[in-house]
Amino acid sequence: MASGTGASTHVIPAEALLQHWQGHRRLTRRTIEAFPEEQLFRFSIGSMRSFGAMALELLAIGEPLVRGVATGEWDESFTREERPKEEILGLWDDSTARIGALWPRIPPERFDETMTAFGKYPGRAYDLLLYAIDNEIHHRGQGYVYLRALGIEPPPFYERE
Amino acid sequence: MASGTGASTHVIPAEALLQHWQGHRRLTRRTIEAFPEEQLFRFSIGSMRSFGAMALELLAIGEPLVRGVATGEWDESFTREERPKEEILGLWDDSTARIGALWPRIPPERFDETMTAFGKYPGRAYDLLLYAIDNEIHHRGQGYVYLRALGIEPPPFYERE
Repeated sequence: MASGTGASTHVIPAEALLQHWQGHRRLTRRTIEAFPEEQLFRFSIGSMRSFGAMALELLAIGEPLVRGVATGEWDESFTREERPKEEILGLWDDSTARIGALWPRIPPERFDETMTAFGKYPGRAYDLLLYAIDNEIHHRGQGYVYLRALGIEPPPFYERE
Repeated sequence: MASGTGASTHVIPAEALLQHWQGHRRLTRRTIEAFPEEQLFRFSIGSMRSFGAMALELLAIGEPLVRGVATGEWDESFTREERPKEEILGLWDDSTARIGALWPRIPPERFDETMTAFGKYPGRAYDLLLYAIDNEIHHRGQGYVYLRALGIEPPPFYERE
């Protein structure tokens, strides 16, 4: 697949990819936080899911994926039932901390390896990880529209601290 | 900033990052295409921008950013006026082709370098490129909500061919 100068050279440091994701996770946390408690699992547009349901999906994917890539254990025990906002934020913070702890345990060569995440999704580890990050950005963008429709200003997209 | 095993090892190949983005660009193209002509620059929710305006923003950032990273020339000549959908799609395809042609001209070590995109946005090249991709995913996610609100099923998120 590679052609041209440096085409197969790796160009993003593992630690930078983690920091990139953690910046997104901080922004997603602020997006969850911006929802009024009573709308988090209620409000939606065009018969889409609520943002709370999307946040549960992100919780079901993020940390379990990193754990799988790091250890080969694919944990699907997270249940997606509705929870109060404070509890979602607590789960989010726990996941964020555990992603940070698991990440340095991924051997560098593992990122290039092909694996089958959760026994269902085959791909190279870096593509699976990028997919999880992209899925978070995608749904958070949808959450922004929900917030605007509710008359609430979403957190600035460019702010990641 | 790096700590732990392999923390500063680069883990995503330049060519894979390009393919990842091009997959997103194919999906964004299908999202633009899914809008009815008369709604592309008209429909919005919560006083947000139209999806057409967002697509113009993506056109103003994507190829010019890659050109800047590859050549040091920061071209801001793209104008964001409203255009018919077919013209937007044509500009999109041209940009996609030029991104593909410019990318192999980026020397591998350039990705780590700090630069100031468009004379305004400082950052490492890989962070600037990831930001452009993320911004596309973010706005496309918003486009999905617009499509659903219009009663149109968006293209599948996981399909990137």
